[in-house]
Amino acid sequence: MTPFSPAEHADRRRRAAAQATAAGLDGVLVTPGPDLLYFLGYTPSAVTERITLLAIPADGDPVALVPRLEAHDLELGTGGAIEAVPWSDGEDEYAAAARLLRPGARYAISDSAWAMHVLGLQRTLPGSTYEAFTRALPMLRAVKTPEEVGRLAAAGAAADAAFDGILGVPFAGRRERDVAADLDRLLREHGHEQVDFTLVCAGENGADPHHHAGDRMIRQGDMVVLDFGGLRDGYGSDTTRTVHVGTLTADEREVHDVVRAAQEAGVRAVVPGATCEDVDRAARAVIEGAGYGELFVHRTGHGIGLTTHEPPYMVEGEAQAIQPGMCFSVEPGIYLPGRFGVRIEDIVVAFPGALPAPAPGVDPVPDAAARLNRSPREVQLVG
Amino acid sequence: MTPFSPAEHADRRRRAAAQATAAGLDGVLVTPGPDLLYFLGYTPSAVTERITLLAIPADGDPVALVPRLEAHDLELGTGGAIEAVPWSDGEDEYAAAARLLRPGARYAISDSAWAMHVLGLQRTLPGSTYEAFTRALPMLRAVKTPEEVGRLAAAGAAADAAFDGILGVPFAGRRERDVAADLDRLLREHGHEQVDFTLVCAGENGADPHHHAGDRMIRQGDMVVLDFGGLRDGYGSDTTRTVHVGTLTADEREVHDVVRAAQEAGVRAVVPGATCEDVDRAARAVIEGAGYGELFVHRTGHGIGLTTHEPPYMVEGEAQAIQPGMCFSVEPGIYLPGRFGVRIEDIVVAFPGALPAPAPGVDPVPDAAARLNRSPREVQLVG
Repeated sequence: MTPFSPAEHADRRRRAAAQATAAGLDGVLVTPGPDLLYFLGYTPSAVTERITLLAIPADGDPVALVPRLEAHDLELGTGGAIEAVPWSDGEDEYAAAARLLRPGARYAISDSAWAMHVLGLQRTLPGSTYEAFTRALPMLRAVKTPEEVGRLAAAGAAADAAFDGILGVPFAGRRERDVAADLDRLLREHGHEQVDFTLVCAGENGADPHHHAGDRMIRQGDMVVLDFGGLRDGYGSDTTRTVHVGTLTADEREVHDVVRAAQEAGVRAVVPGATCEDVDRAARAVIEGAGYGELFVHRTGHGIGLTTHEPPYMVEGEAQAIQPGMCFSVEPGIYLPGRFGVRIEDIVVAFPGALPAPAPGVDPVPDAAARLNRSPREVQLVG
Repeated sequence: MTPFSPAEHADRRRRAAAQATAAGLDGVLVTPGPDLLYFLGYTPSAVTERITLLAIPADGDPVALVPRLEAHDLELGTGGAIEAVPWSDGEDEYAAAARLLRPGARYAISDSAWAMHVLGLQRTLPGSTYEAFTRALPMLRAVKTPEEVGRLAAAGAAADAAFDGILGVPFAGRRERDVAADLDRLLREHGHEQVDFTLVCAGENGADPHHHAGDRMIRQGDMVVLDFGGLRDGYGSDTTRTVHVGTLTADEREVHDVVRAAQEAGVRAVVPGATCEDVDRAARAVIEGAGYGELFVHRTGHGIGLTTHEPPYMVEGEAQAIQPGMCFSVEPGIYLPGRFGVRIEDIVVAFPGALPAPAPGVDPVPDAAARLNRSPREVQLVG
């Protein structure tokens, strides 16, 4: 991905320290993966059992513990912008980490930090306590800068272009996995460097929200759920449309209309003062009102950024207020076992007009959500 | 990968329960990735924040907690061989997990389980304690069955064939990354479905044990470290050879000879009664004796199986006795900053003649290690 500036990474670390202070934490511990990439502009090429740990204290200078073998990579990746403390094979890495931390302190730690490491820290630093980011600081990476929103918009536009392309390929008489391969190719042609998923769920497979793409032959009369995304210039796309091979039955049209209305309601629920669960409730209310409530078996959405799947979650119980720059999916669905499924998903950005600067390619509404996907939401007929 | 039988997975779960009992644990908790694949023959296509947890009690029947969206995949993947308990979005997944566990119990958990999940279990199940596999049950997947050893031998033979192929490509005048791409292609041609790394480290880059492959042009006179591996039929390869473009200097030859002798000593240290650290000490003694001790900056080896990098570790402080069927790398190296590096690595299996059945393609010595790589260890000259 195109790198952000060292100043941007330093800003992010300062914001993390401020959030830690506000949450009564002594610091933030970041491990390899998207969190480390976000705060350091570096992550090791492979996540192994050797611990790498960026410690951002609530007050004080960040420091990175790094395996000696990877110290050079980290220095190259960060331009020496951060103090790095190497540890060597055979050394007790948790004792090394403990020297950078405080006994009895309370830290937030990356959700996906290895259990081995957090247990090692607990053992080595008596009285220290740890909470996962999603619980302690769920909004750590959730609010995007205008530049990040611009990248998400570009990824969304690329996904839309891929959808436009897929409407032109044959469906009937080909296997789900053939269409999935087309989607993969199209995402890459439109600039994705990584494809995370290309779900193609025909007919009864559409009723399984996590079906991927298999050997089932697509036939005339099938509803087909297409859910696809990945990373373009480091930021994620994730969109779903349900298409039809041939002519819809009245049932199919009704279900599609309900989901489309639910998706619209979810997006429109993003108003000043709204919370994440409000989005879920708004979309769910439409589906429940139409009598399909039992068949909407998942939450309404999830955040997106450096990954295609991250906090915040649009789910009952998530009372987090929606803030300008949060980017997330709105993706209700109805799943009729043995028959078909419908899901419609767009990525949206909350209140982009209230960001400190315009985000490229995004409608700057200050008091609503702007969609980052613009593919038609009416059911498209394919051949 | 070619699946193992449901009976084999059930055996593995029984062995885990027995190991847990022997270690005074109440059970083993397994999360997505190679551990889950090993014990269940299933792992989700993507590891997300939604918890999947296989609980193997020391006494009693295993049960798998699974996100409702993935319950169907798990049932397909396991043929219904295990009781699955689905949980739904919006539900407290740790409360759901707690119902499968016991308050106040002591569990071993996958090293790479998400910190978020182990912290959630600690919070929800008062008095329960957790230790990572590497600490509590490091040998859980370390001892391979004859069939597993056979797969590792086949992966090793494929890596050897890739090395043989790479000796025929031009080195001088090409970039490191070009040769790395050749290695990737050769590994796949010889049956690897996944390539984990293809390190090509020319000249001074060879002095960085974790250098990957970059734009440096390879020149006449370069020592070049080649370290490559991946998965073939689900099991790993990982081998290193150091080749030379042109004619070696006396210095280069001496360093290479020392590393070769150290590697031989490491392999020969696998005798009945030996421990993991004995392998490290034996290899290190040769390098220290030659005056290069300070330049051997990493441990001597690591286990291999469903991953290319796992316990046991051949490192000072690892007093685990080596058992028949353990498979691991022996890979000493010497790194001269600014000049060049040499590393030689083979995978070996301990005491294969003492396994319950012969492993295909493996010399059945009962009291020594058999190499799973047979590429020449003398320095090879390339063009």
